[in-house]
Amino acid sequence: MSSNSSFHFNITKKLEGTLARAGEIHTPNGVILTPSFVTVGTKATVKSLTPEQVRDLGAQVVLANTYHLYLEPGDAIVAKHGGFPKMMNWHGPTMTDSGGFQVFSLGTAFDQKVSKLSKVEQITDDTPYAISEKALAKIDEDGVTFKSYKDGSEHRFTPERSMSIQWNLGADIIFAFDECTSPMAPLKYQQEAMDRTHRWAMRSLVAHNLLDTGKKQAIFAVVQGGRFEDLRKESARILAEMKSEAGDEFDGFGIGGSFDKDDLGTAVKWVNERLPEGKPRHLLGIGEPIDLFLGVENGCDTFDCVAATRIARNGGLYTLSGKININNAEHKTAMGPIMETCGCYTCKNYTRAYMAHLFRSDEMLGATLASIHNLYFINKLVADIRQSLLDDNFFTFKDEFLKNFYKN
Amino acid sequence: MSSNSSFHFNITKKLEGTLARAGEIHTPNGVILTPSFVTVGTKATVKSLTPEQVRDLGAQVVLANTYHLYLEPGDAIVAKHGGFPKMMNWHGPTMTDSGGFQVFSLGTAFDQKVSKLSKVEQITDDTPYAISEKALAKIDEDGVTFKSYKDGSEHRFTPERSMSIQWNLGADIIFAFDECTSPMAPLKYQQEAMDRTHRWAMRSLVAHNLLDTGKKQAIFAVVQGGRFEDLRKESARILAEMKSEAGDEFDGFGIGGSFDKDDLGTAVKWVNERLPEGKPRHLLGIGEPIDLFLGVENGCDTFDCVAATRIARNGGLYTLSGKININNAEHKTAMGPIMETCGCYTCKNYTRAYMAHLFRSDEMLGATLASIHNLYFINKLVADIRQSLLDDNFFTFKDEFLKNFYKN
Repeated sequence: MSSNSSFHFNITKKLEGTLARAGEIHTPNGVILTPSFVTVGTKATVKSLTPEQVRDLGAQVVLANTYHLYLEPGDAIVAKHGGFPKMMNWHGPTMTDSGGFQVFSLGTAFDQKVSKLSKVEQITDDTPYAISEKALAKIDEDGVTFKSYKDGSEHRFTPERSMSIQWNLGADIIFAFDECTSPMAPLKYQQEAMDRTHRWAMRSLVAHNLLDTGKKQAIFAVVQGGRFEDLRKESARILAEMKSEAGDEFDGFGIGGSFDKDDLGTAVKWVNERLPEGKPRHLLGIGEPIDLFLGVENGCDTFDCVAATRIARNGGLYTLSGKININNAEHKTAMGPIMETCGCYTCKNYTRAYMAHLFRSDEMLGATLASIHNLYFINKLVADIRQSLLDDNFFTFKDEFLKNFYKN
Repeated sequence: MSSNSSFHFNITKKLEGTLARAGEIHTPNGVILTPSFVTVGTKATVKSLTPEQVRDLGAQVVLANTYHLYLEPGDAIVAKHGGFPKMMNWHGPTMTDSGGFQVFSLGTAFDQKVSKLSKVEQITDDTPYAISEKALAKIDEDGVTFKSYKDGSEHRFTPERSMSIQWNLGADIIFAFDECTSPMAPLKYQQEAMDRTHRWAMRSLVAHNLLDTGKKQAIFAVVQGGRFEDLRKESARILAEMKSEAGDEFDGFGIGGSFDKDDLGTAVKWVNERLPEGKPRHLLGIGEPIDLFLGVENGCDTFDCVAATRIARNGGLYTLSGKININNAEHKTAMGPIMETCGCYTCKNYTRAYMAHLFRSDEMLGATLASIHNLYFINKLVADIRQSLLDDNFFTFKDEFLKNFYKN
């Protein structure tokens, strides 16, 4: 990270014949051992957990959402606290996203029931495609106008505004403002959106460096291009080479947008083969176990995802043999822990029967204990993947884990 | 507690001219320094908190509700864990109530909008009084038949059943099965209910001692009698002297039922003047600051109440200057803690503005942090009351606290 003296990325080990690597991202608030799972604290709180619980379950980094904190409590209040990490009492490294994903979820993807990983089989240039009339966000060259999901009030994000908000939010690593497209969008729209994202990336880079003269924050560009090989490669190449007139470059890269579910590894590889090896790469909003292996194997260093905590709050719990649902009748009398070999606080202290009781009673502690378990599981998984890279047995570990986890 | 070798109650200090005393209740799971606030963990969880958080905020004792744990997950499952304390991972002293309070809230008090502390001005023997046709509980001499609030299924509690359930739940201190009457009930009904409660107390005492041959649990009788001086005195006298044919006595006493809001101290005094000085006295379901002072002054040693955590979950927070509502607009930008001089985890680490944000965002951590604060406040208050007894300045402390807390 030559452009930013507070940050370094060191590669400790590379896995021959792949893009995978183990490394260390140094930030002003601590070192991130990579590959690393990034815990999502959307509104400056990891849902149902104190920051001490988050730290103790093995989390290294917390990511908050720019869009949500902008709407509530507002970035000015957050800035008064000295940034969201201080406000929420988290003392480790942090990230904020750009707000661009909300363009996707409130704009192009609105009413279309699509997600980041979709099965999209037959989209051609002629596939009808229109952004819903009911969409809460409208995109133009300069930025995005959107309505608050809270009260319908109208707001506007531009690259410059995203930078100033993220400056107020105060994370160690921030993202350039981008447009995250729908997997339903045809090539023509994807190309336009990607080109716009590149122009926004340059504006973000310039705006950020005008604010952050002390180099307190690292800025990552976001690679887009959807499912299209040519676009993904072009986006990676352009952003890798992007340099402002003042000579500033990006400190790392995010890989955003949506992917064909069966092709995540391939799409990530297209990108990472073209990004500079010496800068960290974050895969945005992806974090199921299979995706973590594919991401690491194809050169990603960090991952954020709400899945672990969202499914936990509904009683979905990870085990080495796959997910279980604690609401199923069989667990009501089960005296063992969620997972026998798990070292998390929940598994060391509570039975499945007690967890089942908490969920059936709608007790908040159920969400807390389930979130601790799932986040521990995912953090441990990524730490184990890292160790397997250091020990040169990544593929053995991957095959064994996936065989057990997805056996049903 | 001569009848029970695992338990002792030592009085450390008495406040001359009053019934107040500081002491120590020794249980198989630790010592309770009295006066002490008992934290309610209704369904074997203190809502929104881990047991470590409960311990760290200064709680000494947790009380679970027999009625709720009987219905879910069932006392057999709890027994498989070795009792509710082991099930919930709480390592200190514990209590369970008798289930009798649910007779009150589902039976006589059903549909009548009354609480334990009511303003009842003009009830005579002729006041119309009828238990609602819709009541979910029906009382007879032998026990209570009630319908589950969960699924409408029919269940029955008797003194013997309450003892066997509480044995399975495994608390250190349990309560005899009692009928908690409505403050709307006239003298005649109160007399009948009290006499029945005394017969149930004897049956509870006998049944308990047949189960608990190793003296693992202490059993407390529950004094009833509502607002009526003669009944309260009679109930205290009868239960104080009660001894089974096998020679067993109660290890302590609960003071149950409802009170005239303006007369709590007087009613408690009627009772405690007649209970044996050497046994502990628990005031059931009462715990607002003013009530704690009145209870201690008039000879109560322990108190349980859900108010601190219930109001916390709605954003009501204790301060030395009274309660605040964190949802009020003024707190949105307040950079100080809930209470400047508070030593709780929440006040040491978070601003009012952050708390306001969590509540406005419906984030679960808001309930957790608010509950920690309120429980710390109440536990600290009772610990300070205890210290004021030891230091001979109870009335000075009481006057100063109440003047500030209720100044508005």
